[in-house]
Amino acid sequence: MTEIDGLRRTLRVALLGAGSVGSQVARLLLEHQSDLAERSGARLELAGILVRDIDAPRDAELPRELLTTDAEALIQSADIVIELMGGIEPARGYVLQALRSGADVVTGNKALLATHGAEIFEAADQVGASVSYEAAVAAAIPIIRPLRDSLAGDRIKRIFGIVNGSTNYILDSMDRQGLSAQEAQRIATELGYLEADPSLDLEGYDAAQKAAILASLAFHTQVSLDDVHRQGIESVTADMIADARRAGYVIKLLAVCERLSEDGGDAVSVRVYPALIDREHPMASVHGGNNAVFVEAEAAGPLMFYGAGAGGVQTASAVLGDVVSAARRHIAGGVGVGESARQSLPMAPFGHITTRYQITIEVADVTGVLATVAGILSDHGVSIATALQTIERGEESSTARIVIGTHRATEQALSDTVARLADSDAVTRVLSVLRVEGE
Amino acid sequence: MTEIDGLRRTLRVALLGAGSVGSQVARLLLEHQSDLAERSGARLELAGILVRDIDAPRDAELPRELLTTDAEALIQSADIVIELMGGIEPARGYVLQALRSGADVVTGNKALLATHGAEIFEAADQVGASVSYEAAVAAAIPIIRPLRDSLAGDRIKRIFGIVNGSTNYILDSMDRQGLSAQEAQRIATELGYLEADPSLDLEGYDAAQKAAILASLAFHTQVSLDDVHRQGIESVTADMIADARRAGYVIKLLAVCERLSEDGGDAVSVRVYPALIDREHPMASVHGGNNAVFVEAEAAGPLMFYGAGAGGVQTASAVLGDVVSAARRHIAGGVGVGESARQSLPMAPFGHITTRYQITIEVADVTGVLATVAGILSDHGVSIATALQTIERGEESSTARIVIGTHRATEQALSDTVARLADSDAVTRVLSVLRVEGE
Repeated sequence: MTEIDGLRRTLRVALLGAGSVGSQVARLLLEHQSDLAERSGARLELAGILVRDIDAPRDAELPRELLTTDAEALIQSADIVIELMGGIEPARGYVLQALRSGADVVTGNKALLATHGAEIFEAADQVGASVSYEAAVAAAIPIIRPLRDSLAGDRIKRIFGIVNGSTNYILDSMDRQGLSAQEAQRIATELGYLEADPSLDLEGYDAAQKAAILASLAFHTQVSLDDVHRQGIESVTADMIADARRAGYVIKLLAVCERLSEDGGDAVSVRVYPALIDREHPMASVHGGNNAVFVEAEAAGPLMFYGAGAGGVQTASAVLGDVVSAARRHIAGGVGVGESARQSLPMAPFGHITTRYQITIEVADVTGVLATVAGILSDHGVSIATALQTIERGEESSTARIVIGTHRATEQALSDTVARLADSDAVTRVLSVLRVEGE
Repeated sequence: MTEIDGLRRTLRVALLGAGSVGSQVARLLLEHQSDLAERSGARLELAGILVRDIDAPRDAELPRELLTTDAEALIQSADIVIELMGGIEPARGYVLQALRSGADVVTGNKALLATHGAEIFEAADQVGASVSYEAAVAAAIPIIRPLRDSLAGDRIKRIFGIVNGSTNYILDSMDRQGLSAQEAQRIATELGYLEADPSLDLEGYDAAQKAAILASLAFHTQVSLDDVHRQGIESVTADMIADARRAGYVIKLLAVCERLSEDGGDAVSVRVYPALIDREHPMASVHGGNNAVFVEAEAAGPLMFYGAGAGGVQTASAVLGDVVSAARRHIAGGVGVGESARQSLPMAPFGHITTRYQITIEVADVTGVLATVAGILSDHGVSIATALQTIERGEESSTARIVIGTHRATEQALSDTVARLADSDAVTRVLSVLRVEGE
C-alpha cells in the first residue's frame, strides 16, 4: 500500500464524494502536491474519487481517470480515506470499511458523527486508526483540534456558538436591514445559503448535530443528536428582532454545551435555540454567514474562534489540515489516545439549566395587571430584573404590552411561569419568550 | 526512565521555573493528575521543579520535596521538560540539554524562540524530539497549533494581531476612558499589566518576538527578532487617540506578518507598529488585556482567535495542552515532521509593504497651502482618499490642521512623502503619522 519513493513514502488518499467541498479538496490535493508532501512528510497520492455517476456534469474539472464508482476497491487500496458524501448511508458503511482495513479517516459528515459517532470511534480504536473531523463543525474555523489538543490539559465549562451560517445570515439581515423572515429567507435561498429543503437549517437540526459533536469532545461523553434540546428560528419574527434591538440585544441561533453541577456529580446540557445576546458581546458582531464559537475553560478563561461557517474551499482547508495530520500520524506509526467517552456524564434534564428569560406579553389595560403578573413570577421564585410596560390606546379599549426580563432561574421555574402567565385571565397573549445568553 | 504501571506508562515531567505560570502548571499537574493521565495515555509524574533558591518565598504552595536547584540531574531524568524560566540563558542551555537527552520540550519562552529558534528546532530534529510553544504567543489562545496543524493544508497570506496585552490595556483605557498615556501606564503598572521595566512591552519588543514566532511558523521561514520592523506605543498621545476616534478609528499596537509578491518570488514582511483600525472591525472590540489574532489563509479565508493575552493560569492551560500532546507523541513513538524552515523566503524590505497612511499636519492658514500639500503627495504618486482641514483662529495669526487619508501606496512612497511634507515651508509640523490596517 505504501512505497518508498527516494527518501519519501507515498500515502494513497481516497476521496469519497465530489460535491462542492470534495471537488475543492481534489483540486488542492493536486495543485499543492509538493507543499503537502513537505508538510506531511509523505507524498499524498490522490488514488481515486468515488462518484455516483462518472458522466454527471460537475462544476470543477476533475481528472476523469480518477473518477470511480467502485467504492470497495478504492477504499481497500487507501491509507487515508476522506469521506465527504454526507448523509448516513452509504457513508457509514464506507467509513467502517476504511477503518477495518486500517486506513485513517477524515470526514466532514456531521450527521454521521452526531448519530453514529460512538460506533465509528470504537471501530477506530479497535484497529488503532484515527478519525478526524475538523470540517464537520464551523467549516475552516479550527475548533475541533483546539478542543481536543490545545485544551487537553484544561477543563471545559461551557461552549456556546453560532454554528449555522444560514440561520445567522437570515437573522442578521432581519436585524440589520429590517427584513421580514420571509424576505430574508428568500434572499438566503437565492444566495445559496439555504438548501432546497431548508428545514435542516431553519429547524436547528444542523446546529444540533454540531452541538452534539462539540459536547461529546468537550465533556468526554457521547452526546448524540437525540440528546440535544432543539428549537429553530421558525418562530422568530421581525417584531421580536425589533424589540430585541430596542432592548440592546440581538437574536442569534445559539448552540450551548454546558457542564452542570447536579446532585450526585456533573451532568451535561446541550441545546440549540434562538437567544438574546447583548449587542456589546463580541458574538453580536458575527454577521452574515459567519460562525463563531466561544469556549470557556477553567484555566484558559473565555476564548473565541471566528471565521467563515461554510463554503467549499473554506471547508476544504479544514479537510486538508486533517489529511496532513493523518499523514504525519500514519508515518509516525501511532495515533495516541483515541476519542474518549470515558467520563460518560449523564445528560441534565432541560429543566435544570439556568438562564434569564425575556418574556413579552399582551395584557388588558386594567388596574392591577402588573401586580398580578409580578405575583405569578414571585409564586415561582422567579425575580424580575427589568419590566417595561407600554400602552396602546384603542377606540374602545386599550391593550398594554409588558416586557419582563427575569433574573437567572431554572428552566423549569421559568417555563412554569410562562405557562401560568398564558393561563392567567390578566394576560391576553404571550407574544414571545426568549432566553438571554452570553452573560 | 519510563515504567509500566499496570496498563499505563509513566512519563517523568521536569518543570524549570516556578513563577506565575510555572507554579500554576505545577498545581494543575498535581490536581488534575487522573484527568491528564486519561487524556495523554500516560501517568504524568512531576519529577521536580527547578528553582533558583529553595527557600525563597512563593505565592503558590509547592511541595517542598519537589523543589531542586540541580538542573542537570532533573533534566537528565525527564521524558518531558517544561521550560518556563524566560530569558535566554540558562534557559537555552537547559532546553538544548533536554533535547540532546531525548526529552520533548514544552516552552513558553518567546525571547528564546525569537532569537535562537533555528538552533533549538534543529537540535530537536536531530534527535526526533518535539518542541511545543503554544504558551509563547497569546497565552491560552490556541494559535500555534491551528497554524501548524489545522492550516497545514492551506497557504497563509497574512496574520495580524494584538499580541501584547499590556499595550492593549493602555491604548484601550486611553480610548475608552480618555486617559493620558501617563495615567494609563500608571494604572497598568498598578494592575500588574506592566513590569518594573516596561520597555519590553511599550517599545514593542514583546510583540515583535511573538510576530517573529508566528511568521516563522506561517511562512516556513526562519524569522528572528532582528528581522522585525518594530515601533512601540511611546509616541501615541491622547490627542492622536481622540483624532482617531473622531475619524472612526481606534489605535491598536499590531503585529503584522505578510507574504508579499516581489520580483523574483514571494518575500516576507514582519512588523509591529501602532496602527489605525476601523471601529467596525472585530479587532477594534478587543478590550483590556485581551489578545486577538487574525489569520488570512488562501482557502480558509479570514479566521480570528481571541482570548486572554496573559495571566499565570491562562498561560498554564496552553502549557498543559502541549504537555498532553507531547505525552501522546512520546507514547506513539514518533514526532512526525519537525519545525520547517524549508521555504526560507527572503525578508521584504520595509519600504516594499503597501498600506494606507493617515497624516496629520499643522500648516499656516494661508492661501494655497492645501494645493501645495496635495502637490507633494501627487509628486510621490500617492493619491488622497480623504482630506479634512480645520482652522484654529489665534489672536495674531491662524493655524490650520489637515488630516490626510491616503490611498494604498508603498511604504517607501509614503515615508518619502512625509519627509517632503516635514521639509516643506507650507507645513509647520507633522503632528502624527499612522498606518491604517485591517482593511
